[in-house]
Amino acid sequence: MAAKLGILAGSGELPLRVIDACRAAGRPVFVLALEGAANPSGVPHAAVRLGAGAEGLRLLRENGVEELVMAGPVRRPTLASLRPDWRAAKMFARIGLRALGDDGLLSAIIKEFELEGFRVVGVHNILESLLAPEGPLGAVAPDEQARADIERGLEVARALGAVDVGQAVVVQQGIVLGLEAAEGTDALIERAGRLQGAGPGGVLVKAAKPGQERRADLPTVGVATVDACARARLRGIAIEAGMALVIDRAAVSAAADGAGLFVVGVKAP
Amino acid sequence: MAAKLGILAGSGELPLRVIDACRAAGRPVFVLALEGAANPSGVPHAAVRLGAGAEGLRLLRENGVEELVMAGPVRRPTLASLRPDWRAAKMFARIGLRALGDDGLLSAIIKEFELEGFRVVGVHNILESLLAPEGPLGAVAPDEQARADIERGLEVARALGAVDVGQAVVVQQGIVLGLEAAEGTDALIERAGRLQGAGPGGVLVKAAKPGQERRADLPTVGVATVDACARARLRGIAIEAGMALVIDRAAVSAAADGAGLFVVGVKAP
Repeated sequence: MAAKLGILAGSGELPLRVIDACRAAGRPVFVLALEGAANPSGVPHAAVRLGAGAEGLRLLRENGVEELVMAGPVRRPTLASLRPDWRAAKMFARIGLRALGDDGLLSAIIKEFELEGFRVVGVHNILESLLAPEGPLGAVAPDEQARADIERGLEVARALGAVDVGQAVVVQQGIVLGLEAAEGTDALIERAGRLQGAGPGGVLVKAAKPGQERRADLPTVGVATVDACARARLRGIAIEAGMALVIDRAAVSAAADGAGLFVVGVKAP
Repeated sequence: MAAKLGILAGSGELPLRVIDACRAAGRPVFVLALEGAANPSGVPHAAVRLGAGAEGLRLLRENGVEELVMAGPVRRPTLASLRPDWRAAKMFARIGLRALGDDGLLSAIIKEFELEGFRVVGVHNILESLLAPEGPLGAVAPDEQARADIERGLEVARALGAVDVGQAVVVQQGIVLGLEAAEGTDALIERAGRLQGAGPGGVLVKAAKPGQERRADLPTVGVATVDACARARLRGIAIEAGMALVIDRAAVSAAADGAGLFVVGVKAP
């Protein structure tokens, strides 16, 4: 039997999918629910606030965790809301407080857990089938205009990623309607939908960062993303094949077909 | 007397300031009001839609315009809403439709007017006093945390500018709260305000693009920007000295002092 898996659970349904997969495989888990996480039922779990580093490590050890996975996005805290304990403060003393604002923070946290003796794996190591394949997931494929918008979106998303901000961009006919920062993808989709001009609608592009740590916070798409795009009258979604997670591919494909949207995995450069 | 100035008027109060300055200097003007422009009273003017290139050129020539200035932002149109006439279509045939989504469009339009025999100047050539000076405009200066946030904001804004998107970023304690795309700065400020975490508030940073054409759409700050930041509980505004316009410096300074905000011009690299 595989070693007990510690799940650092952020928001959204990804943590629940990881729990389900472990349950199906008979693998024991312990869930450390971070702020914003749904309450996992039927499995051993505890909640910690983000700044409570010492308590988090103690809980993981006491519950026999050897391998760890981070699942689901966590909103970046300000230092004031973080209230770091001595253990978290020690980490920030080393990596610098600037990291707070960056997804570099996640890489730093992964290194910190490894220094503490944990193995850290990616969600895609637990649930390989979640990785986005290349090509359209459903029946609709992007047309020429949409492909041009995807190209432009990837270019902008990579520029953002290079300074460690955001993952998502909405482009309509070459016009960048919206960029994601702290508001999250759903708010971006809703806003960009309202800003659309006449003609073919916008495309949501979610891209990994150049040199992205795949064990941390890969771009994720699920049925909720498709539904949000449909409500906002966007035309489709592009993600990078092998560098994004699709939660429940069959359901995403069916939702996309139902709404007449494309969801396409494009080759990362 | 200086030649008649043609003013291509976008939204906001900048076109009105240019009209006032010309009136004060006894310089004749002709205003071509683009979509979103306020109706200029008391001066010769006409309205054209963006795609009506031939009509715009005819109006400028018939009204004896030799020198042109672009003042105030213009929302990028989609091709479908642009409905280009033969003259606009000719331009796009040369520069490519992709330019529609970019501020590269403004540079292309400037070149196009020059090919047609007009001199194109920048707002700062008409109203040099509008250019942001270095240092704080009012009584409040950014503290160490705010200066770090300004640095981070400039870094991100430049990365965005390098792919020809947006000009504004809001940063709080190293966390990028929001990025501007098509929604405009006021919507960005309002959204970022709601996303703020505990502790010292966010800073609005507006930066020019690397290699920015200074005759087109320089980042602009006015009393309305200060008021919006105050309402959103941001701490201040940073712009690049010599690469941004401050509309009514005394009023901006007074508004900032009244709200306890800083407005600071920082050295462009």
